[in-house]
Amino acid sequence: MAADNSNAEQRFALIKENLAEFLNEEIIKKVVDEGGHPKIYWGTATTGRPHCGYLVPAIKMAQFLAAGCELTVLLADIHGFLDNLKAPLELVMHRAEFYRYTISTLLGAVGVSTEKLKIVLGSSYQKSAEYVMDVYKMASIISEHDAKKAGAEIVKQTDNAPLSGLLYPILQVLDEQYLDVDAQFGGVDQRKLFIAAKEWLPKLGYKERAHLMNPMVPGLHGGKMSSSDPDSKIDLLDSPETVAKKIKKAHAAPQVTEDNGLLAFIEYVLLPASGLRGKKEFKVERERDGLETLVYEDIEKIREDYKNDILTPQLIKPAITRDLNALLAPIQEAFKNNKEWQEIAEKAYPPPPKKEKKVKNKGTRYPGGGKPEEKALPMRTNGDAPAEATEAAPSAQ
Amino acid sequence: MAADNSNAEQRFALIKENLAEFLNEEIIKKVVDEGGHPKIYWGTATTGRPHCGYLVPAIKMAQFLAAGCELTVLLADIHGFLDNLKAPLELVMHRAEFYRYTISTLLGAVGVSTEKLKIVLGSSYQKSAEYVMDVYKMASIISEHDAKKAGAEIVKQTDNAPLSGLLYPILQVLDEQYLDVDAQFGGVDQRKLFIAAKEWLPKLGYKERAHLMNPMVPGLHGGKMSSSDPDSKIDLLDSPETVAKKIKKAHAAPQVTEDNGLLAFIEYVLLPASGLRGKKEFKVERERDGLETLVYEDIEKIREDYKNDILTPQLIKPAITRDLNALLAPIQEAFKNNKEWQEIAEKAYPPPPKKEKKVKNKGTRYPGGGKPEEKALPMRTNGDAPAEATEAAPSAQ
Repeated sequence: MAADNSNAEQRFALIKENLAEFLNEEIIKKVVDEGGHPKIYWGTATTGRPHCGYLVPAIKMAQFLAAGCELTVLLADIHGFLDNLKAPLELVMHRAEFYRYTISTLLGAVGVSTEKLKIVLGSSYQKSAEYVMDVYKMASIISEHDAKKAGAEIVKQTDNAPLSGLLYPILQVLDEQYLDVDAQFGGVDQRKLFIAAKEWLPKLGYKERAHLMNPMVPGLHGGKMSSSDPDSKIDLLDSPETVAKKIKKAHAAPQVTEDNGLLAFIEYVLLPASGLRGKKEFKVERERDGLETLVYEDIEKIREDYKNDILTPQLIKPAITRDLNALLAPIQEAFKNNKEWQEIAEKAYPPPPKKEKKVKNKGTRYPGGGKPEEKALPMRTNGDAPAEATEAAPSAQ
Repeated sequence: MAADNSNAEQRFALIKENLAEFLNEEIIKKVVDEGGHPKIYWGTATTGRPHCGYLVPAIKMAQFLAAGCELTVLLADIHGFLDNLKAPLELVMHRAEFYRYTISTLLGAVGVSTEKLKIVLGSSYQKSAEYVMDVYKMASIISEHDAKKAGAEIVKQTDNAPLSGLLYPILQVLDEQYLDVDAQFGGVDQRKLFIAAKEWLPKLGYKERAHLMNPMVPGLHGGKMSSSDPDSKIDLLDSPETVAKKIKKAHAAPQVTEDNGLLAFIEYVLLPASGLRGKKEFKVERERDGLETLVYEDIEKIREDYKNDILTPQLIKPAITRDLNALLAPIQEAFKNNKEWQEIAEKAYPPPPKKEKKVKNKGTRYPGGGKPEEKALPMRTNGDAPAEATEAAPSAQ
């Protein structure tokens, strides 16, 4: 790594950077102060194809690695399977494999060593007798009310929601113990679950973990998006031209910095990514206007200039496009050179069958509308990878 | 066996005898008609010491065996463990072992062959990867509402009840598949769960089972009792004198046949037990009154005579005592001759520590009152073994 993080203070600062909240940070501080490697885990259900929204947690995880943490990425394949029981198990396996390639390449792409990265399949331990006994035990100690509260922001909470929604919080809490980590990382929407984890684990005699939370970052279109429409987000394998086109369409009001997806992307992805490569900076070229290039080293100055209309959406969009494409280039290069990954991609996300009538597509989104995958949204994909890289193309539904 | 049940019609009649309800009886009828051995299971959580209330389902199970069924008794040790997490696992193992001795001896005591009796520990398969995947799957398909409905009469239904209460119905339903049976037997309080089983199993591609239900039988004191006070029920190992004393104290209004625990005990335990031994009869001696012995062959005549005060509580209590002691004698004989069983009894139900103040004892019975075993009542012990053999001694709380 380029930055010097050998110093404990610097390491800890890098771990904390950009976090919205950090519970029990003393747990991690102690390990860092002793020159150790804090063990942190992040989980994701292996369902939809990972898009640019994943860059937000990924950059944070790259910072963890750069700060000398041991990082465990949990590919929650059982969750992925349960969220779409109609999908054959094979498909789920392929998707987990696709996630594995993508995440390891993604983290490598920002220049950090992935030597301390461990990618674990949920199915590798979540069916073990020991784990299951703990699921049963936890279910005997935790009330329905508490389970509901823990999942309030990440699990659909209707009376008709599947029971698994109440079970998932228990699994996610136990994962901290079974992945043998010091901390769990996630979006701040996981806060209630993280609080529950702090309370529940000691009830089974397990130790309390630290919890690191990313803020909820608006998508490039502004506001949080849930998922689904493939046209509305930038795929990690989109061509530079497609990326340019999608970012061009991104909505951003001039001078408005609140809920501004473009600025958020610079703050939580591009600036820290450049920092990991050696120097935190964001350049805005103004050649066309005959002006000199603006070079920023922090988000505050960017926000200030944006407020004052020195930086306009028209100016920052090409700059974001340039940096994002640079970030994606090594991933796409790796994909191009990896036949296995390409084959997995084909199998994991086969081209969709011919579109049915729109009316029918819409129907499944409403409660009780049939498809189990719509009713049982994976808790983790809701919150941990919230950022959307672009708004929906006008032609999309 | 004494009765001739080789004939399909007789076999089926014996299976049906005294049942309150029988869902999908065609499933069992078909097996019997083909000369096969219907596979039936009954489950019990291994918690409190089995008392005379267990004779009601036990006699029915003895009839299943006599009718050529394969009977599986599920000792739900995981449930037993979860219902009292403070109890060491060892204790639970001892209790399961105690149940195993008791149930097999009990069934043997009424003279049926236990060759087709299988006693299975829940822990032998409820932690397996396959089973657990099905628990996860079922939880993804079943709504919280449906799980609640299924357990409505057997699981405590407060917001503060443990989540396991919603999980148990799923386990109990899956047990039908994993124990590979044609039918499940239980009290009629299990009806909603049995209906759920019929609906849920096919959702995972498993076949629908038949369900046989015993009526809710009042205890000797009248009315259904939940559990706990050791002085209020007849232990299967109580001495003939203790049995006599307890039955003497049993409450029964003369001429009232409704909710009459004495008559119910004759109907659901003593008459069918004598039937299994060769001839259904219940004798009431009236020597003291200088009258001839009354010999009954069915409950209707007994009820009639009771209504007309020909049979009084004072007359039938000694008769019940005589027959119950005769029923318990071979069990106690077996216990006396089995050192291992005696040792297990010591370990499974060690003498309670010195009694704390009554106020404290009472406190734990109220919601939120501390002890997990009070909050998480085993669903199966509530309903399947409801009969109480005597009312509480006046001195008991």
